[in-house]
Amino acid sequence: MLTNTSVHDFLAALASSAPTPGGGSASALASTMGASLLMMVAALPKTRSGSDEDRTALAAVSAALIGVQQQLTEAVDADSLAYDAVTAAYKLPKGSDVEQAARKAAVQRAMRGATDVPLGVMRLSVIALKQAPAVARHGHRGAASDAGVAVALLAAGARGARLNVEINLGSLADRSYVEAVKEEIDRLSDEAGDAARAADDLLR
Amino acid sequence: MLTNTSVHDFLAALASSAPTPGGGSASALASTMGASLLMMVAALPKTRSGSDEDRTALAAVSAALIGVQQQLTEAVDADSLAYDAVTAAYKLPKGSDVEQAARKAAVQRAMRGATDVPLGVMRLSVIALKQAPAVARHGHRGAASDAGVAVALLAAGARGARLNVEINLGSLADRSYVEAVKEEIDRLSDEAGDAARAADDLLR
Repeated sequence: MLTNTSVHDFLAALASSAPTPGGGSASALASTMGASLLMMVAALPKTRSGSDEDRTALAAVSAALIGVQQQLTEAVDADSLAYDAVTAAYKLPKGSDVEQAARKAAVQRAMRGATDVPLGVMRLSVIALKQAPAVARHGHRGAASDAGVAVALLAAGARGARLNVEINLGSLADRSYVEAVKEEIDRLSDEAGDAARAADDLLR
Repeated sequence: MLTNTSVHDFLAALASSAPTPGGGSASALASTMGASLLMMVAALPKTRSGSDEDRTALAAVSAALIGVQQQLTEAVDADSLAYDAVTAAYKLPKGSDVEQAARKAAVQRAMRGATDVPLGVMRLSVIALKQAPAVARHGHRGAASDAGVAVALLAAGARGARLNVEINLGSLADRSYVEAVKEEIDRLSDEAGDAARAADDLLR
């Protein structure tokens, strides 16, 4: 598992010419860092004004993010595994018509998996970004830069995940899936932008 | 050293309420991932057109980025150490006038260190971003999403580093340093935006 290796080794693997880990895992990790930083600010002993309202709002943020952060962490590994499956499918034999048909079907299945993982990262990034305005409103002002970094990383993770979805959609034959995903990623990008702007305005 | 711990443990430390690692280390790590992905695309056996020109241009990118990626990796650790020094300085005794003066000087020194590290991350992120258009122009089209993720992560890392510089500038008494840094981060943000746009246009 990538997430069990050291940060140093993960970075070396990312920089190497091996196909995985690549941009998909890096995007998932960026979003996981963003979600983690929102959790950090929500967990600080100090809040914006020290009020019970702040404490309650930040407790709700923590509760909303704990599962999201865990699923994003899992996506760091899942993205590389899904892409490895694509590489393996392309290596299947293609000598006969039967082999060619089986290979084509395997590639489609694997590509679908390699699209679903970054699509999930986009969805999770948007869920986390929607918690950012509450963190900005109720979190300790001394941690405003941490909240701002969280927003930047979640937005970059969502954008990176979208790029991975899009490049894989180009290889998928199932038109109804492709159209549904295109619509969803447009919507998710809009939602990500709205939540990021709302949080950044509150952090100014 | 943070970069010697597992990715999983680094993320858990980021999510905890402990002051370090925080947004500074996360920004440095985002930029390191971005630089690493540019190195990956530059190192792929396939290039845009397979020409010698591509190979030469990508070799120059690799040569330019290897030191940058290493320095960004070091900044992941350096940022947390610099902030730990700030926390330690604030804990110095302040019973007498002499102690108060010594504490104030120590806080200023530590804050300066905690500003210089993210400033360095901004500079390194911009250097890496300036290599992105060459990667976009000469790199394998199959890795366009990796190059695009690299740009998004370097831009987010630069923005996150800027937020850390700015919050620390507020505690610094040396006006000439503060003004010089403000001017530099404005210029660096402009350069980051220009390089990111140029690369994204080429990746479309």
